[in-house]
Amino acid sequence: MKIADIGGEFALIERLCAQAPNAHPDLLAGIGDDAAVIGGIQADGSHLLVTTDMLVENSHFRCDWATPEQIGIKSVVCNVSDIAAMGGTPTFMFVSLALAPETEVQWAESLYRGMGKACRRYGVTLAGGDTTHGAAVTISITLLGRVAPENLCLRSHARPGDFLCVTGPLGSAAAGLAMMTAGLKPPDLLKEKHLTPGCRLDVGPAIAPLAHAMIDISDGLAAEVNHICKQSGTGAAIVAADIPMHPLAFEAARMTGSDPLTFALAGGEDFELLFSIAPQDRQQLERRGIDVVTVGKVTNAAAGILIRLPDGKREKLAGGYNHFS
Amino acid sequence: MKIADIGGEFALIERLCAQAPNAHPDLLAGIGDDAAVIGGIQADGSHLLVTTDMLVENSHFRCDWATPEQIGIKSVVCNVSDIAAMGGTPTFMFVSLALAPETEVQWAESLYRGMGKACRRYGVTLAGGDTTHGAAVTISITLLGRVAPENLCLRSHARPGDFLCVTGPLGSAAAGLAMMTAGLKPPDLLKEKHLTPGCRLDVGPAIAPLAHAMIDISDGLAAEVNHICKQSGTGAAIVAADIPMHPLAFEAARMTGSDPLTFALAGGEDFELLFSIAPQDRQQLERRGIDVVTVGKVTNAAAGILIRLPDGKREKLAGGYNHFS
Repeated sequence: MKIADIGGEFALIERLCAQAPNAHPDLLAGIGDDAAVIGGIQADGSHLLVTTDMLVENSHFRCDWATPEQIGIKSVVCNVSDIAAMGGTPTFMFVSLALAPETEVQWAESLYRGMGKACRRYGVTLAGGDTTHGAAVTISITLLGRVAPENLCLRSHARPGDFLCVTGPLGSAAAGLAMMTAGLKPPDLLKEKHLTPGCRLDVGPAIAPLAHAMIDISDGLAAEVNHICKQSGTGAAIVAADIPMHPLAFEAARMTGSDPLTFALAGGEDFELLFSIAPQDRQQLERRGIDVVTVGKVTNAAAGILIRLPDGKREKLAGGYNHFS
Repeated sequence: MKIADIGGEFALIERLCAQAPNAHPDLLAGIGDDAAVIGGIQADGSHLLVTTDMLVENSHFRCDWATPEQIGIKSVVCNVSDIAAMGGTPTFMFVSLALAPETEVQWAESLYRGMGKACRRYGVTLAGGDTTHGAAVTISITLLGRVAPENLCLRSHARPGDFLCVTGPLGSAAAGLAMMTAGLKPPDLLKEKHLTPGCRLDVGPAIAPLAHAMIDISDGLAAEVNHICKQSGTGAAIVAADIPMHPLAFEAARMTGSDPLTFALAGGEDFELLFSIAPQDRQQLERRGIDVVTVGKVTNAAAGILIRLPDGKREKLAGGYNHFS
């Protein structure tokens, strides 16, 4: 069987991880969340968080579309987003980098300048790494973080009756990408959302103590709702009309002949947060001035994972971006 | 300027890291040692160690020469070796992996089976990772470890008058590689040293409390002596005739028309340890039954970094394997 046929990245990861020892009393959450959680080893009582992401040229970024500085920023942001989704704050970063020997040193320096900008923004220290040669530029980042035990927010604790909320508009990054792919010049906002997104470290740690489950939206809303439901043993009912989207994303859909909903459901890399929260706690967030949008509800597993489309039809909410399809 | 012209991996790393914030009061050693050392955060008073290595197909391994299981073993071993060189023990591992969609799932499972074997051998728990698609198989591993402060052994504390010692024969891996490159069938020992090396976690933590500086020999003895000297501000005098080598490595040199000394000095991936130690402490190791071989002495910086060749000539000890040459 080929990797492409196994049914997605998660099925593959599960099969691979079964080959090696992957249980330890200090490992509170390992494979299958935004970051691994190692408990009981830190002096201040916090848990150690570890997340890792690999970005490959022409798969995750194109050197002719993005400047090295933009690539550097985004490579850090996607990792900080994983730490934010656990309710944590990032600390130390390690970067492994494969470059062709004919790469200009200036290109690599600009890449790191971009990483440096994101590090400063999110309070991250570059603490080590590895450089080596390879045909395609490959950036592998491991980011450590910490989270107080009471703030830890896994994917697996959503409860039927919870609201499902997101922290901001979805589909903008995908809309920018769609326009660039179609050879159109996207408006600055969409271009920025695709090339140099931010992430929601500003609200993740504040939402975490109240939320039951949280995940960052890196592979599209549909995939992330499925992850939370699968790991919490629940169903979900999403309302398409309630998904926040920027007017420019609708405009991009019109110009590229796309379905705007696809941008939000299957478009990756918005780096907003999706979380489940009890209705009464949802109100507390509002009182604290944290703006979020409710896009659906957590239901019993038996009800399935559904979306109500704008025409009123209910459909199974499937898919999302699959790295091997 | 191209990466290939900048003067090696270390010059590049220094230039890149200057672009991002890389200092923090808890970061006791960062870029430029085998692993980063983060102090003051662990409950048991130990330091957190973090090392990371990236292996790229056709640069670090060839899928037609090595089985996926062998590649998996070696990818873990080179990281455990870095932790051992700090005097530490490894704990949790994170694996990022790029694979082509047409890769057989079985191939990837065998890779992880190899990793699992090495994890079991060295007490490592697989705690997370990332899988994605790429044209070349790329394996990026981040390994955490811990070390008691009194056992921490950096590269930077060698002192003039110290002995420079190694933990075992050098050049065997390079000898095996040279025979395979020449289309010859290497004897099992050399083949194993190249394809499925072990590392010296068995002696690293025992040597560390007595040694002044330590490094693992992944890029050849010459490079590692230079790293210790550069970071300690010392010189060194190595005696070529004292470098331990297996008789089969000499035989491989004869069969491939190579200089056996080049295997030891410039051949990478023996994963033995090089360390500097006061003469009286060297004797203590012997009394504890730890077999090591003295290959030279640490000298003042002004004396330079020299090797006495078998013919009695003294030469500057330069080079080692450069990932971008």
